[in-house]
Amino acid sequence: MEKTYTDTLPFTMHSLEKQETICIFGTGDFGRSLGFKMLQCGYTVVFGSRNPQKSSRLPNGAEVLSHSEAAQKSDIIIIAIQREHYDFLTELTEVLKGKILVDVSNNLKINQYPESNAEYLAQLMPGNHVVKAFNTVSAWALQSGALDASRQVFVCGNDSKAKRRVMDIVRTLGLTPLDKGSLMAAREIENYPLQLFPMWRFPLYLSAALCIFFFFYCVIRDVIYPYVYEKKDETFRMAISIPNRICPITALVLLALVYLPGVIAAILQLYRGTKYRRFPDWLDHWMLCRKQLGLVALGFAFVHVLYTLVIPIRYYVRWRLKNTTITQVTTNKDDPFSTTLAWRSDSYVALGILGFFLFVLLGITSLPSVSNTVNWREFRFVQSKLGYLTLILCTAHTLVYGGKRFLSPSILRWCLPSAYVLALIIPCTVLVLKFALIMPCVDKALTRIRQGWERNAKISKSTLNEKTDI
Amino acid sequence: MEKTYTDTLPFTMHSLEKQETICIFGTGDFGRSLGFKMLQCGYTVVFGSRNPQKSSRLPNGAEVLSHSEAAQKSDIIIIAIQREHYDFLTELTEVLKGKILVDVSNNLKINQYPESNAEYLAQLMPGNHVVKAFNTVSAWALQSGALDASRQVFVCGNDSKAKRRVMDIVRTLGLTPLDKGSLMAAREIENYPLQLFPMWRFPLYLSAALCIFFFFYCVIRDVIYPYVYEKKDETFRMAISIPNRICPITALVLLALVYLPGVIAAILQLYRGTKYRRFPDWLDHWMLCRKQLGLVALGFAFVHVLYTLVIPIRYYVRWRLKNTTITQVTTNKDDPFSTTLAWRSDSYVALGILGFFLFVLLGITSLPSVSNTVNWREFRFVQSKLGYLTLILCTAHTLVYGGKRFLSPSILRWCLPSAYVLALIIPCTVLVLKFALIMPCVDKALTRIRQGWERNAKISKSTLNEKTDI
Amino acid sequence: MEKTYTDTLPFTMHSLEKQETICIFGTGDFGRSLGFKMLQCGYTVVFGSRNPQKSSRLPNGAEVLSHSEAAQKSDIIIIAIQREHYDFLTELTEVLKGKILVDVSNNLKINQYPESNAEYLAQLMPGNHVVKAFNTVSAWALQSGALDASRQVFVCGNDSKAKRRVMDIVRTLGLTPLDKGSLMAAREIENYPLQLFPMWRFPLYLSAALCIFFFFYCVIRDVIYPYVYEKKDETFRMAISIPNRICPITALVLLALVYLPGVIAAILQLYRGTKYRRFPDWLDHWMLCRKQLGLVALGFAFVHVLYTLVIPIRYYVRWRLKNTTITQVTTNKDDPFSTTLAWRSDSYVALGILGFFLFVLLGITSLPSVSNTVNWREFRFVQSKLGYLTLILCTAHTLVYGGKRFLSPSILRWCLPSAYVLALIIPCTVLVLKFALIMPCVDKALTRIRQGWERNAKISKSTLNEKTDI
Repeated sequence: MEKTYTDTLPFTMHSLEKQETICIFGTGDFGRSLGFKMLQCGYTVVFGSRNPQKSSRLPNGAEVLSHSEAAQKSDIIIIAIQREHYDFLTELTEVLKGKILVDVSNNLKINQYPESNAEYLAQLMPGNHVVKAFNTVSAWALQSGALDASRQVFVCGNDSKAKRRVMDIVRTLGLTPLDKGSLMAAREIENYPLQLFPMWRFPLYLSAALCIFFFFYCVIRDVIYPYVYEKKDETFRMAISIPNRICPITALVLLALVYLPGVIAAILQLYRGTKYRRFPDWLDHWMLCRKQLGLVALGFAFVHVLYTLVIPIRYYVRWRLKNTTITQVTTNKDDPFSTTLAWRSDSYVALGILGFFLFVLLGITSLPSVSNTVNWREFRFVQSKLGYLTLILCTAHTLVYGGKRFLSPSILRWCLPSAYVLALIIPCTVLVLKFALIMPCVDKALTRIRQGWERNAKISKSTLNEKTDI
Repeated sequence: MEKTYTDTLPFTMHSLEKQETICIFGTGDFGRSLGFKMLQCGYTVVFGSRNPQKSSRLPNGAEVLSHSEAAQKSDIIIIAIQREHYDFLTELTEVLKGKILVDVSNNLKINQYPESNAEYLAQLMPGNHVVKAFNTVSAWALQSGALDASRQVFVCGNDSKAKRRVMDIVRTLGLTPLDKGSLMAAREIENYPLQLFPMWRFPLYLSAALCIFFFFYCVIRDVIYPYVYEKKDETFRMAISIPNRICPITALVLLALVYLPGVIAAILQLYRGTKYRRFPDWLDHWMLCRKQLGLVALGFAFVHVLYTLVIPIRYYVRWRLKNTTITQVTTNKDDPFSTTLAWRSDSYVALGILGFFLFVLLGITSLPSVSNTVNWREFRFVQSKLGYLTLILCTAHTLVYGGKRFLSPSILRWCLPSAYVLALIIPCTVLVLKFALIMPCVDKALTRIRQGWERNAKISKSTLNEKTDI
Repeated sequence: MEKTYTDTLPFTMHSLEKQETICIFGTGDFGRSLGFKMLQCGYTVVFGSRNPQKSSRLPNGAEVLSHSEAAQKSDIIIIAIQREHYDFLTELTEVLKGKILVDVSNNLKINQYPESNAEYLAQLMPGNHVVKAFNTVSAWALQSGALDASRQVFVCGNDSKAKRRVMDIVRTLGLTPLDKGSLMAAREIENYPLQLFPMWRFPLYLSAALCIFFFFYCVIRDVIYPYVYEKKDETFRMAISIPNRICPITALVLLALVYLPGVIAAILQLYRGTKYRRFPDWLDHWMLCRKQLGLVALGFAFVHVLYTLVIPIRYYVRWRLKNTTITQVTTNKDDPFSTTLAWRSDSYVALGILGFFLFVLLGITSLPSVSNTVNWREFRFVQSKLGYLTLILCTAHTLVYGGKRFLSPSILRWCLPSAYVLALIIPCTVLVLKFALIMPCVDKALTRIRQGWERNAKISKSTLNEKTDI
């Protein structure tokens, strides 16, 4: 049988010999889970433990030996042990000599130690090739196979051969290795699983700041002002009325801020006459978190929709409607139907609904699995064209909501205009700038720059030579 | 040209020889689709058919021969034929000798035959290596390339070399092989595609039971009681009012049941003083279907939101509002505005909205493609911290909804309290227990146990040695 | 160290030699991004540029040389240059001889040139193997690693060895190569990234046509008719009332059209007595865009829900409610509570809510990442069983909404029935046909045909032999 293979299909030799043995030091949760997964993928797994007899809960098919015995079975040793106990490895220097040590450890805090665990291990064991890997996968994910967390495994190490062997194992386990370079990258890799939504921080802080500002702004106008002048207790507005003002305002401002950096970038490129100069750092960072900004805005828009839809259920609204009716009956006043008012009320609501619908669509297409199925032209179409349409609809929604009241001085309270007036500043600015940028003459210049043309460049000819990916 | 390759890049020899030939017996839908996919991925495909001349609809580039001719072209034969016709293979014993037979068949019912199809095939053909694979992929998915169904291909077989060759083919087709061990696993693999949401069964049955119980409970209190005492026909309540009570109650109870097993597990670990003893089976199973429980709860919460938002559209509500107004006008009674009522109504609605918003957020992050992009710390943060916040908000929503009426004996009908009072029992229990568990002293003990510490253990020192991942 | 490897693990030789050098001509965005990704994945990258000294912004670790120097370092040259500049390659014919040229270019318009860029390159450089690849990935995706766009890389070329080497590189970069055959496929591959939602075109055009038709239909009945006969200005209805009729109608018709092709296909199969004859092209295309039809329908249903929920907020509705109350008070008429009306109003709303809930569920399960986690039986259960339940609920929702008015001639205006009456035609037809098809006798015949049985076939015996994948 074996001969048949070898003769007709030499290439499969590669595959046939894959029954590789991997040694895992440490029988904790992570070591066991990793061993379980490796056994599933066809590896032979040997655990190294201080108490081989007492080690329990190990996956079926794995062998447990003492550390030194286990180490002899393989030249790849996974060190699934906490950093504090690494020093015991020095006793095994002889038996481990020349082998690859894979550091899979994590810390409890960012930058907990002066050097990364992997670098510490490399210092302890100068005769070994240390590779950092697997620290971003969770034991639970490995064992359940659900892999709810990320499939990417960051790998780094100073010896490229050792690194590549580890990357092969990663691939065989069905995960995606990503070479992050030398062991100096270990610190970054060890910090990665300790990060908590780094890209979401700026959008969340920004929206919190906006919320707090507009909350106090609205409290002054809608609660304190009536209390001072009319002695009315309007505090109950803080539960729904005021949040329902903060949410749409924050959503609109954040949505405009999604498109502002693109506009600024275009203006910068036009001004500089080249696309080959780096944007300032703040602009780069801003552009990278546009998706997060947009999703936070969508969250606020969603809450705004719910707050708006519950309006007729509120006691205050029902009471007022009843009271207006009663007043009208008792005073016998007539209230003729106003088509203008009907138009205004309906169109502002309709604009809001359509804007929200497009916004939800944008949100859905930003789901990784959805955006993964579209080509980049489609992705850009949705995120740019539909995005601007959403911004236009939402701005129009706010403008029509304001209607005539917008410019009437009667809405000033203590010289403060309504909050939504402030909210319109950034969106209108973005729309005006964008409108200027898509003027044919400006657009043409911008397109040329984005295709690689440079205003003050002698090398422009050679640069134009290159493929550009817009 | 060829020489150039060989000299400079010896490793690519592997790739260059890959024009491997695979034989497929059977020209049905599945065989054709698999052949189509294999051709696409660079294999040479030969079909074996009883009527090679009459076989139609085969993918371009594939050859069709008689079974015995086709079998000679390859040493891997895919048996894309129904189990009932396997016996004809016995005629080909000679020509098939030593080759790998891949059983791709499925049955119509779970455990339809005494032995799995693959084991039956192995009995029929003792001179062959039988490998079970590909039965979980659908013909349609292979052909359309959409692969809407799972990408995982379960593989099992007694000969590990044969198994590994099949796994290589699976990988080349862009699918993910998963080694399930010996051919004894074939039964499980054959049953897999016949399963219908096994993890959803418990949550769905549980929620159905809750729904039915609370439906009858509410019918007794809200339909039968008024009918008996006031002769009022309130049956129309069964369309919206009562469902709108059942939905939030079921949602809240299910949400609490998502967090109850974690609390029970913590108490068990504290009581036992170790994390190294297995939980009872029911607890294990419960913990594994927490995601499904939560999503079913979200479904009920979603329906509750819709049911609540349509309230003002309902004829009954409009009629009542009109009638109250008219009564008030005719009786000339005054109904002064109550800030307390406004506060209560608004805050209970606001709590519900925020709770629902967080709940939707939890649902979105449990989408596989979303959870795949977060590291496990972020995943845990969302599912645990935000989850408890959701539970707190939803419980508070229900508590404030009840308000003073909560403890008033006047709401008892036939000694039955309002349904929402019952609904609060489990959530409040969970929250109280969780609150106890995060007390510093308890939390410290629990953290130590989860890091591997054992109360009555001599081996504690060595266990602490190991890496723990949680 | 090296020896150890070679001795114990011969197979890893493959991996150890992977430090392959790849040459990229062109230092534009795309070339740089591809080089960056290749460096990350362990390749040595050499850029070829006209001005090696002036090339900036290149990834760390990459070398920049003149074109001819760079070409000598590798036998795979990525041509990341625009088609217009390909002719300069003719100067390098000597140094490029026998090497693989990878065309990664895209055009600005579909079918911009008479022949595809890759074929043009092959004509220019007859001594080279040209492979088309990588044109569907975006520079941004490569660099950010986010890979929001598709992971699939379409590859084609006339030399299968060259093609396979490129496919190996694609795989190493963590992308999925898909062999599209000879270089003749290059045109299709080059057009792919220029496509804009081809599968969505038919559903979107169809829904636009439905919307426009029903818009004018409703305007005639609800705006022009009252204006002609009662001189009432009802134009404000065009903002919400009429859209809220168009949306549910379009949604219902589209949902029915999702299930109509399946019914037609079943009837065709029954009529022909075989499943082995191709469906007409229009039916094939229709069946392929069912998912898109359903999602567009869901969009309309979503907007309908929002439009419905805002009803009580509208000025018109509030004004009417107030006025009815006032009229009733002043005329002193009695309006007793009607249980029938309450039942009808509540049950039509409840049916709509449940229908929408199931519809959203269908939408969620059609997300790629969700459908990827279910087996095909579960997928079919959701999309077929739950789908029909949704259609039944939504049709019932519309029927109950119409209620008695349905057949009353009083609702005719200019002989035009209400729009929803028209909307019911297709859904009811589909449901009646489906009901006929699941009658036991019909179902049995259909099942036999789908298992491969043919009415007028001599080859039926051999066909039954084959595995069928339902």
